[in-house]
Amino acid sequence: MDEFFKPALDCSMWPEETGCLIDKARSEGLALAWDRLAKQTPQCNFCEMGLSCAKCVMGPCRIIPGLDRNQGVCGADADLTVARNFGRFVAGGSAAHSDHGRDLVEVLYEIGCGSTSAYSIRDEAKLRRLAEEFGLKKDGDIKQVAKTVAERLFADYSTHGPGLAFLGRVPKARRELWDKLSLTPRGIDREPVEMLHRTHMGVDCDPVSLCLHAARTSLSDGWGGSMAGTEISDVIFGTPTPGKTKVNLGVLKKDMVNILVHGHSPVVSEMILAAASDPAILAEATKAGASGVNIAGLCCTGNELLMRRSIPLAGNHMMTELTIVTGAVETIVADYQCIMPSLVNISQCYHTKFVTTSDKAHFPGADTYHFTPHNAGELAKQVVLKAIEAFKKRDPSRVNIPVEPVEVMSGFSNEAILGALGGTPTPLIEAIKAGTVRGAVGVVGCNNPKLKQDEQHVTLTRELIKKDILVLVTGCATSAMGKAGLLVPEGASQAGSNLAGLCRTLGIPPVLHVGSCVDNSRILQLCAVLADAIGVDISALPVAASAPEWYSEKAAAIGLYAVASGITTHLGLPPMILGSPAITSLAVSGLNDVVGAAFIVEPDPVKAGKLLDGHISRKRLALGLSA
Amino acid sequence: MDEFFKPALDCSMWPEETGCLIDKARSEGLALAWDRLAKQTPQCNFCEMGLSCAKCVMGPCRIIPGLDRNQGVCGADADLTVARNFGRFVAGGSAAHSDHGRDLVEVLYEIGCGSTSAYSIRDEAKLRRLAEEFGLKKDGDIKQVAKTVAERLFADYSTHGPGLAFLGRVPKARRELWDKLSLTPRGIDREPVEMLHRTHMGVDCDPVSLCLHAARTSLSDGWGGSMAGTEISDVIFGTPTPGKTKVNLGVLKKDMVNILVHGHSPVVSEMILAAASDPAILAEATKAGASGVNIAGLCCTGNELLMRRSIPLAGNHMMTELTIVTGAVETIVADYQCIMPSLVNISQCYHTKFVTTSDKAHFPGADTYHFTPHNAGELAKQVVLKAIEAFKKRDPSRVNIPVEPVEVMSGFSNEAILGALGGTPTPLIEAIKAGTVRGAVGVVGCNNPKLKQDEQHVTLTRELIKKDILVLVTGCATSAMGKAGLLVPEGASQAGSNLAGLCRTLGIPPVLHVGSCVDNSRILQLCAVLADAIGVDISALPVAASAPEWYSEKAAAIGLYAVASGITTHLGLPPMILGSPAITSLAVSGLNDVVGAAFIVEPDPVKAGKLLDGHISRKRLALGLSA
Repeated sequence: MDEFFKPALDCSMWPEETGCLIDKARSEGLALAWDRLAKQTPQCNFCEMGLSCAKCVMGPCRIIPGLDRNQGVCGADADLTVARNFGRFVAGGSAAHSDHGRDLVEVLYEIGCGSTSAYSIRDEAKLRRLAEEFGLKKDGDIKQVAKTVAERLFADYSTHGPGLAFLGRVPKARRELWDKLSLTPRGIDREPVEMLHRTHMGVDCDPVSLCLHAARTSLSDGWGGSMAGTEISDVIFGTPTPGKTKVNLGVLKKDMVNILVHGHSPVVSEMILAAASDPAILAEATKAGASGVNIAGLCCTGNELLMRRSIPLAGNHMMTELTIVTGAVETIVADYQCIMPSLVNISQCYHTKFVTTSDKAHFPGADTYHFTPHNAGELAKQVVLKAIEAFKKRDPSRVNIPVEPVEVMSGFSNEAILGALGGTPTPLIEAIKAGTVRGAVGVVGCNNPKLKQDEQHVTLTRELIKKDILVLVTGCATSAMGKAGLLVPEGASQAGSNLAGLCRTLGIPPVLHVGSCVDNSRILQLCAVLADAIGVDISALPVAASAPEWYSEKAAAIGLYAVASGITTHLGLPPMILGSPAITSLAVSGLNDVVGAAFIVEPDPVKAGKLLDGHISRKRLALGLSA
Repeated sequence: MDEFFKPALDCSMWPEETGCLIDKARSEGLALAWDRLAKQTPQCNFCEMGLSCAKCVMGPCRIIPGLDRNQGVCGADADLTVARNFGRFVAGGSAAHSDHGRDLVEVLYEIGCGSTSAYSIRDEAKLRRLAEEFGLKKDGDIKQVAKTVAERLFADYSTHGPGLAFLGRVPKARRELWDKLSLTPRGIDREPVEMLHRTHMGVDCDPVSLCLHAARTSLSDGWGGSMAGTEISDVIFGTPTPGKTKVNLGVLKKDMVNILVHGHSPVVSEMILAAASDPAILAEATKAGASGVNIAGLCCTGNELLMRRSIPLAGNHMMTELTIVTGAVETIVADYQCIMPSLVNISQCYHTKFVTTSDKAHFPGADTYHFTPHNAGELAKQVVLKAIEAFKKRDPSRVNIPVEPVEVMSGFSNEAILGALGGTPTPLIEAIKAGTVRGAVGVVGCNNPKLKQDEQHVTLTRELIKKDILVLVTGCATSAMGKAGLLVPEGASQAGSNLAGLCRTLGIPPVLHVGSCVDNSRILQLCAVLADAIGVDISALPVAASAPEWYSEKAAAIGLYAVASGITTHLGLPPMILGSPAITSLAVSGLNDVVGAAFIVEPDPVKAGKLLDGHISRKRLALGLSA
């Protein structure tokens, strides 16, 4: 265990800008996540192991397996306690993604009803394709199509719907396996609710049954809520196409009004972006002495704008506090998820406005704007104008933007990838067969202050591309890759010769940015397309996933839906399951016999790279290819 | 705090049968809930206070307010940590009730589709009344009406429905208040899912906002899932009417095959009951040397059968382990909720079969039968036949049924109460105005091994009825009341003279049994009927609720929906919120200004009685009545 949980508090080992700004924060008397982690260390071993339970007031209980206190008051043992906790953990992540997806479907519905002028359909062709895919009328008035598709997806959130709309994308063998194991999700809301029910005292007391329902719950996210989030975001805001922009703190501009959009949804941030190019508003910025309004992204809201609009990305999860410490941020506009509550206090130590926009995510001390599809355009302008006001209060003596920006290429939607291949996956399959691309790994997920920031992502990825394994990246891993020069075609120099040659021919990076964390659904879909084209189950593909620096419940849901979809998944930190050897063994081995994939838990990224490389070799050999 | 959490392990202070069977269990080497609680004591203070968080792997965190470790890694302070935990706690309870309600709606739908022969509509008039209430066609083929009503309730579980069907029952003033506060639930599944989302790291970081959403989530249970559970159970299995039967362990029969139905749903237990009267099966029992098959209830499945079929109730939550220790139980048939996992092991120490019946509730080591509306009749027969087999293995030398049964009266549905009053609430309102009945309190909820079993329920209830306050009882409080002689008309002798006189006139007990824990929705509806008849909000009524010995997440959801509906609610144990003085103060006082009701936390039942009496006096005075 110890190897996993040593907080890395030695600043000298961090990227330059991180260490520099941590020093600045400390000199200004601010505590950051790393400091709070240090104060929380040692962390509760019972909770870490998944062995504490506070789900009823006969408890709370702490289980010590094998000793006299090996059961809670109700009689739950270590295995059951761990399974209950893990089940709720996954349900939390699935619910978050799916509730995000719901917001997009609701905006689509409003567009269909003609009741919003702020939003419209940017990719009509994709909307019509979805209608056709769902067996709905695809022609005629686009608003009517929008309404019909939205209603079809609302049905996926219901308890008695026709079955998830996107399940038609799942390869036949996988669907049959899910049906056999009762893993096919029945409703996007139903599965997390049933997980809450099952984990109530005295309901599901079988650890394996709970883990299987956790898998079903995660699949309702991956092939349900997340996929709806991705696809409908594309419909409303446009399907990404490749483009270039920049990342890291250097995207902040000393002479401009800097507004950072933070969270996970494009719904509000797209409106902020639109407002920031309004000539009347730009005139106000000029009056305030700024040379313009600079919108940059944080976290997955940042990834959404990076993918679709080539908007620069200022940083990932562990950079969110530090962006404020630069002293150059006028406003952070937050929607929801992964927004540290500490940001409010840190903002208050600068001239920075911290703005919340979602009714689901209030922050005491923040400036609250309740965005709806009806008022979004108007409120966005107000937010930008307030940022311009704040610019006047910026203290130049406290500004420190410690690095220059780094160029990246983004926008690799499945449509863009398959489009570049001539509309079919055949060239990619041929490249895999030839060993030009030996396989693919999605390196995704968060940062965690327990680990050296970005290093796990980058080290692992370099190990993989050296072995001619293409990497797809989403979420907070993105800016790590960008800063390491892996998101530009020139990154090919870090790849093995076969992959490098392909990248040079196509003018693409060895690491393709495919989006935000809901956009891991793009990877699921791509795997399904490849599996169908080859005529195998997803579990037969030479692919894998990895979340080397994950921290959140959402990441656990993603990892589990990947595994349940047949994609072996590496985690750089274990989930809180080690208190149950039985469940740990199920996770890292037993699941192979159930769903044809399992977890690999390995904190060392070089070792993890070797394990994933070995996994891909074995899958290649099983397909009759060279290792 | 200490006053709340002292486990009462002195057997001499328990009811006779409890102490006697605990002694027997110990002599047979068995550990029971009280023993496990003793081993878990002292319990984790952080968890007790709501101050630990394991919702991400930056943590787990333990907050020490006011000290150096006053924030988690994300920056969450004590208030936020407590609110997040409380929010999920309530969501767990709401989800459990609502998922139970869903099962009833699904059976109704199957009946409507003509695809089950095991179930039918016993109360057609109620089904047609519901159809009319929902604005649906009430006449014609009853199956068609069943299908339409089921579909209407399915819509309540969806994300984009027409609004909860039962909200029409809520008094206008209360509906307007909910709308103003955004407390009106939008969907039965949606609210707990949004609670999971909001409590994910970095979503809702406002403790008050989280508490309000917890209230909305609980209302989706009380006026949604639970109410559907109650009403559709009545439709399918019959609306209860008053009847007499017996309670306590003495209902087990030495010469009969004893089958206990345990859990919360009538769906399976009604089938077991039917199978147990099958002549062919009874013949098998005779062959095995038994004089018959005796079905008795535990927990809320027991309450369901007690209400509708006058089936005896063997015991409540803290009696479930002890029933097996009698050595006289052939089979426990479990559905879900509050079924201690320990029951499997304890069963294995006797000849007892432990049978599970729900796909949502597996127990390793149990005999698993997967009941569906299609196979329920057949599987129920198999279960009863297996119990008869087990009877042959009963060891008479290990049998100890330590008490004689006690008579009770049950079946007081709202239809029965209002029917007895001539179809209108006017006589009850007149009695309240006259002070014959000064008010009413619902005494509900579980047992908890931290408290002297049943004593809080009974002591509080005696205090209330002495003051001419009518008590309504549901759930595990029921058998406590029954054993204390409060559920028969003769119990009037324990009431104040006015209430006693009324009871004697009407031939009713001073404590009316109104059902299982989902049936607290009956109390909500009755309050709404009274409030509408008087022309006031529910919060103006001289009523209250109490859960003196509660333990579960469901009880927390019930308490919160009661308060959010305007009913001040007493708890004998605090929820795990004491780590936040702000939230504690909101719960016990601030909520009065928000929803016109609040919690009272008081472990001493005599003091609690005085507080509730004072509350009722104040409400009476405010209505212009005598105190």
